[in-house]
Amino acid sequence: MATLKYKKPSPYVVPAAGCPPEDTKYQEYEKNLELSTVGKHQKFGFALFGVGRAGTIHLSFLIKEPKTDLLYVIDDDKTKLEKLKKYWNLDSVKFLTNAESDVVYKDPRVRAVVVSSPTHTHEDIVTRALSHNKGVFCEKPVAENLAQTKLLYEKAKQVKQPLFSAFNRRFDPSFASIRNRVRAGDVGRVLTVKVCSRDSPLPTIQYLSTSGGIFHDCAVHDIDMTLYILGEYPTKVTVAANANIPEIAEINDYDTVGIMLSFASGAIGIIDLSRHSTYGYDQRVEVFGQKGMIKAENRQPIYNVETYTERDVVRAPIHYSFPSRYQEGYENEMRHFLEVLEGKTSLSIDTKDVLAVSKIATACEESVRTGNSVEIKWSKDELPHSQ
Amino acid sequence: MATLKYKKPSPYVVPAAGCPPEDTKYQEYEKNLELSTVGKHQKFGFALFGVGRAGTIHLSFLIKEPKTDLLYVIDDDKTKLEKLKKYWNLDSVKFLTNAESDVVYKDPRVRAVVVSSPTHTHEDIVTRALSHNKGVFCEKPVAENLAQTKLLYEKAKQVKQPLFSAFNRRFDPSFASIRNRVRAGDVGRVLTVKVCSRDSPLPTIQYLSTSGGIFHDCAVHDIDMTLYILGEYPTKVTVAANANIPEIAEINDYDTVGIMLSFASGAIGIIDLSRHSTYGYDQRVEVFGQKGMIKAENRQPIYNVETYTERDVVRAPIHYSFPSRYQEGYENEMRHFLEVLEGKTSLSIDTKDVLAVSKIATACEESVRTGNSVEIKWSKDELPHSQ
Amino acid sequence: MATLKYKKPSPYVVPAAGCPPEDTKYQEYEKNLELSTVGKHQKFGFALFGVGRAGTIHLSFLIKEPKTDLLYVIDDDKTKLEKLKKYWNLDSVKFLTNAESDVVYKDPRVRAVVVSSPTHTHEDIVTRALSHNKGVFCEKPVAENLAQTKLLYEKAKQVKQPLFSAFNRRFDPSFASIRNRVRAGDVGRVLTVKVCSRDSPLPTIQYLSTSGGIFHDCAVHDIDMTLYILGEYPTKVTVAANANIPEIAEINDYDTVGIMLSFASGAIGIIDLSRHSTYGYDQRVEVFGQKGMIKAENRQPIYNVETYTERDVVRAPIHYSFPSRYQEGYENEMRHFLEVLEGKTSLSIDTKDVLAVSKIATACEESVRTGNSVEIKWSKDELPHSQ
Amino acid sequence: MATLKYKKPSPYVVPAAGCPPEDTKYQEYEKNLELSTVGKHQKFGFALFGVGRAGTIHLSFLIKEPKTDLLYVIDDDKTKLEKLKKYWNLDSVKFLTNAESDVVYKDPRVRAVVVSSPTHTHEDIVTRALSHNKGVFCEKPVAENLAQTKLLYEKAKQVKQPLFSAFNRRFDPSFASIRNRVRAGDVGRVLTVKVCSRDSPLPTIQYLSTSGGIFHDCAVHDIDMTLYILGEYPTKVTVAANANIPEIAEINDYDTVGIMLSFASGAIGIIDLSRHSTYGYDQRVEVFGQKGMIKAENRQPIYNVETYTERDVVRAPIHYSFPSRYQEGYENEMRHFLEVLEGKTSLSIDTKDVLAVSKIATACEESVRTGNSVEIKWSKDELPHSQ
Repeated sequence: MATLKYKKPSPYVVPAAGCPPEDTKYQEYEKNLELSTVGKHQKFGFALFGVGRAGTIHLSFLIKEPKTDLLYVIDDDKTKLEKLKKYWNLDSVKFLTNAESDVVYKDPRVRAVVVSSPTHTHEDIVTRALSHNKGVFCEKPVAENLAQTKLLYEKAKQVKQPLFSAFNRRFDPSFASIRNRVRAGDVGRVLTVKVCSRDSPLPTIQYLSTSGGIFHDCAVHDIDMTLYILGEYPTKVTVAANANIPEIAEINDYDTVGIMLSFASGAIGIIDLSRHSTYGYDQRVEVFGQKGMIKAENRQPIYNVETYTERDVVRAPIHYSFPSRYQEGYENEMRHFLEVLEGKTSLSIDTKDVLAVSKIATACEESVRTGNSVEIKWSKDELPHSQ
Repeated sequence: MATLKYKKPSPYVVPAAGCPPEDTKYQEYEKNLELSTVGKHQKFGFALFGVGRAGTIHLSFLIKEPKTDLLYVIDDDKTKLEKLKKYWNLDSVKFLTNAESDVVYKDPRVRAVVVSSPTHTHEDIVTRALSHNKGVFCEKPVAENLAQTKLLYEKAKQVKQPLFSAFNRRFDPSFASIRNRVRAGDVGRVLTVKVCSRDSPLPTIQYLSTSGGIFHDCAVHDIDMTLYILGEYPTKVTVAANANIPEIAEINDYDTVGIMLSFASGAIGIIDLSRHSTYGYDQRVEVFGQKGMIKAENRQPIYNVETYTERDVVRAPIHYSFPSRYQEGYENEMRHFLEVLEGKTSLSIDTKDVLAVSKIATACEESVRTGNSVEIKWSKDELPHSQ
Repeated sequence: MATLKYKKPSPYVVPAAGCPPEDTKYQEYEKNLELSTVGKHQKFGFALFGVGRAGTIHLSFLIKEPKTDLLYVIDDDKTKLEKLKKYWNLDSVKFLTNAESDVVYKDPRVRAVVVSSPTHTHEDIVTRALSHNKGVFCEKPVAENLAQTKLLYEKAKQVKQPLFSAFNRRFDPSFASIRNRVRAGDVGRVLTVKVCSRDSPLPTIQYLSTSGGIFHDCAVHDIDMTLYILGEYPTKVTVAANANIPEIAEINDYDTVGIMLSFASGAIGIIDLSRHSTYGYDQRVEVFGQKGMIKAENRQPIYNVETYTERDVVRAPIHYSFPSRYQEGYENEMRHFLEVLEGKTSLSIDTKDVLAVSKIATACEESVRTGNSVEIKWSKDELPHSQ
Repeated sequence: MATLKYKKPSPYVVPAAGCPPEDTKYQEYEKNLELSTVGKHQKFGFALFGVGRAGTIHLSFLIKEPKTDLLYVIDDDKTKLEKLKKYWNLDSVKFLTNAESDVVYKDPRVRAVVVSSPTHTHEDIVTRALSHNKGVFCEKPVAENLAQTKLLYEKAKQVKQPLFSAFNRRFDPSFASIRNRVRAGDVGRVLTVKVCSRDSPLPTIQYLSTSGGIFHDCAVHDIDMTLYILGEYPTKVTVAANANIPEIAEINDYDTVGIMLSFASGAIGIIDLSRHSTYGYDQRVEVFGQKGMIKAENRQPIYNVETYTERDVVRAPIHYSFPSRYQEGYENEMRHFLEVLEGKTSLSIDTKDVLAVSKIATACEESVRTGNSVEIKWSKDELPHSQ
């Protein structure tokens, strides 16, 4: 009875630890049990522009979320609109083409718009939505160049409406937990940040030819993750880039990229990218600091099941692509946007970060062009307050 | 250039493998992209009886699911009904007490009812719902004794309505994948099945005193998992049971239990149970066969993040309790029920299994009482067709 | 520069944590660097009886260990002795048959004998070695029955020589760390102990027919592990046993076994056994307590390498069999024996445990024979001091 | 009895798969059982120069290995020699200072020397040993500059003796398995190779000031690993390097380094280094190819044990330093050297690789100095045959 000496009083008389902070789904359940109705429980009218790869994710959220009332879906593909209505049983939603979208901006029930239409349409939709005092949730980029992007953010400030440039990865629970722990000092002063990002499936050449290139289309996410974790902008960047896939070489883009960033604090950032991973959507982050290391490995649909045979031990492959890998990130960024509309919080992404990420991506392109390292200078205005 | 010899043709000219079968969330996304509207896209009217611990889970699903139209919520706690309306923005739902529930059965828009009210009310609600030709989704047990349960199933057969006794664990993706692989022969002939099940948090004594005891309240799930995987009923059972928590001893129940099952095929089943795990909701399954072994470890909210320090390597704790651990199981069982209503499939749970599980739990109680092994005899009627 | 605030003083001025306790191989290296010669650095003369499956492991250790001087190897297979000499370059070792072994006992240079000859020879060798004041390291069992075993232990006590019944698993670093942490209270009062043990490869029928049966040949190790961790003897045992392999049925033995133990402290022990695992040598232990759970999964030769493909994520299989799985355990038990000879410590295995394990195995056999639970009574003499 | 249909014939009549290739320790055991004496079982006389951090590892091996006969240990620290003799019970070994080492070279019993003395002594010892027709196992570097190194290799070729520059990591089972699988095409054409290497504990400043700098002291191992896996030399290198530890800045060295390599095949190499990891000796490798990805995570002393508490799931830290992390690598490289002496195989490391690694390290230093990328040109002579 060697361990009876460790017997503790009945758990009925000792206070329990309760749900750990990481189990956010249980916390949500607890809230649903408590039904606290402190504060306003508003329902916001929404319009969704564009139902493509990202729009489909937002549509599914907006339909299901009790806090949102999807009023309009705008897309120029009329057959798709027909199908959408039938597929989702959307009897109370109005379906419009862009030409008919005036009514959306004028409808006072529309509190916010979600913009997931083709990139070249963003600027116009965002401008009109802000002009009509709607909140804006916009897939990146907000506009096609940096100057125009700045103007839109100024406009948003002026009309006091949120302009939210969606960076879903910041809202991924595993990456967010890393960032929060790093910022809380869990690994001490940061010395190295590594981000690995390999796309799956291979995008079509059609998509790639209008994507803006791997740096502005892909690397921005990894650069953003680095800034998000580190809270600092790099002073130098060097890039190694190859086009191993002939069709990608033909459009003067790259499929395999390494990026090395130097930071004034002494930290080093390393990013490695690929347009095509055959084993699934590879998304990893690692932070090395003076006190320890924290890292996020890939996520797998059925990560907890293993099969043992005489030849090997096997688990299921990692997630196939972004919609399943970042499902929680997509939901959480939209929930964050709702909380901003509710006035419970302010936008968590610094506009300066959005602009900085774009500037760094442009420096990456220069590094590839010149075959050398590129210094990046920052004006005081461009730097975050913390720096 | 040692590996250039492995260079394959451009991925643009080679057909890709596509999404792996395990990534069901991506498959759902693909369906949402395709928008196939083949078949009826019906919307079913629902009534929900009881909004307690399980009912809260179902409520959240029924509100969000585009295929369901939640018409009524029935609960005797009027303040809760008030709160529910406000909390979830439920403007179009009718809230009733049980006394007022007649209208529910008579409303032809109500296609099905979900029963998650207290156990003693199940039989009445199920009977009335079936009598009015509603489909029934019912938290276990369907009725308070075996005889009555059989009658209800006969009634359901007679009125040709589904009576679905919810066993959410069968719909957990990891356990379902184990079962499917076992049945496909991945581990060959099965020799041993092990189920480990430890509850978190410790239920209140109030709950436990009316729960029906650990065998009928808890062990039924683990027994069901064993039958689900093995497709065979045991011929003998032995139980070791202790009440290490004094309050549980006082109500003549047990908190720590071991169950050993013998099967005619030569397989052995081992279940170990606890009412109180301090490290989270421990739910594991293992199947050992002639060709190999497959097992499901616990699930963790942020399983892919590890922190390395000089003292240890740390991950987040496992899920705290059933609502987060079995979130997907709860959703999948309700989706299965919807597909039954749509006529796309038939109920996947054999009524005989439901009855057998209860009979085995009763044999467990006898084994504890007698302190010995108990033989279990099955009539031909009671056995599944496969046996 | 968000994390520069966590900057700590130079590591050259802050004392470091040093090697963690778990890295025993580094600690051994540190000792080899320090070369502390405090205490006697003796070299002990050894004789090895039997060079079969276990003897081969001990031979390899005795040859390499600088603290041992292998003087004699005794085995009746003369061709094997010839081969041994050549294979290992053993120029200074004397090779004898059992008939010639008198010289061994009489040689004062022989400080201890290692007995890994066939079981029926143990008693005689142990008796003679003890009579000549040699220390004895003996593969289990020390003798063929309980009474004789007790006599040998008494003899050892009388001549003040260590009689070490080898239980290599107690010296496995992972299992030992579990035991030490459990005894230090890391999981609090213990409620459930589980041991899983599946043999690989399948032993020959020749071996099995003289093995003494699965309970005395195999289960004793798992029963011992349970006692080792728990420090308590069971009061009741129930066994489910099957012979799924026809050749094993023919010799009236079993290949698949479940054992359930009840302890007076309220703990439950569960053991599951197989004679034949096709996926490697499966050896696991789990301890569940009031404060948490600790478990040892299997060990794999190349556990840290994973291959990711479109179909799965693959690691190497677990260890094939006991010589590689328990390599460290075998070395550590022999090192422990050397420390006993050096007078640095006393034998870590309580004789009472050795006798108790055998008694419990016999009770298991009774449970199978009667098809029922068996109570186990312990006299005060038989119980460990702690109980 | 759903799975009885998968019943296979008795394992006694079906041939078994046997030991998996990864379980090399079991294979060694099998050899020890078989005792095949085909071929010569020679014992080689050895002399060991230098018993410092690396020498201690080799000493321990040479003492224990039955195929080696340690005849001389040479070190200028006489007290250490005294201690060594006592600590290891080395009665038959001769202990000498360097001044007395002439006898070693002249002794025909000495088949080979192991050189782990201070770097500046290597060239002389290697030269003399080769001149006396001894085989040489030498800790890197063989000499202090490239020209002299080449001469030594020519000398070795001329006298037909092995000159083995020890790269223990190539002999680590996990890294070797990655290399072999990559070369067998398991991940297809390689696109990215990543090596992460963080030292533990922090070396003393005394050591660092004479180490030759982080590139020639540390990075050479990681560069070598990249070449080992890829079989190709880089054409360009860019380095980011920081000295975050003031004492290291003072000696003009770096503690945190990122290296990016470009290869003509289109592959990218990324190395990240640190002189000081507080969480243990971090050593990882990853290879990404057209068909999949393979990676080696860190190794941990007790990797298979996990403790679950309400706060977290905890495993033991990774290995503390190189002697425990690379224990198998050190043993395997010495065994390889023995097999070369036995004539069973030829040296597995191409001299060109040794020279190339050094040249690349020098290019790294230039990149740091110039703050820019550096092209690396290779003459036909310098390239491996495969390129």
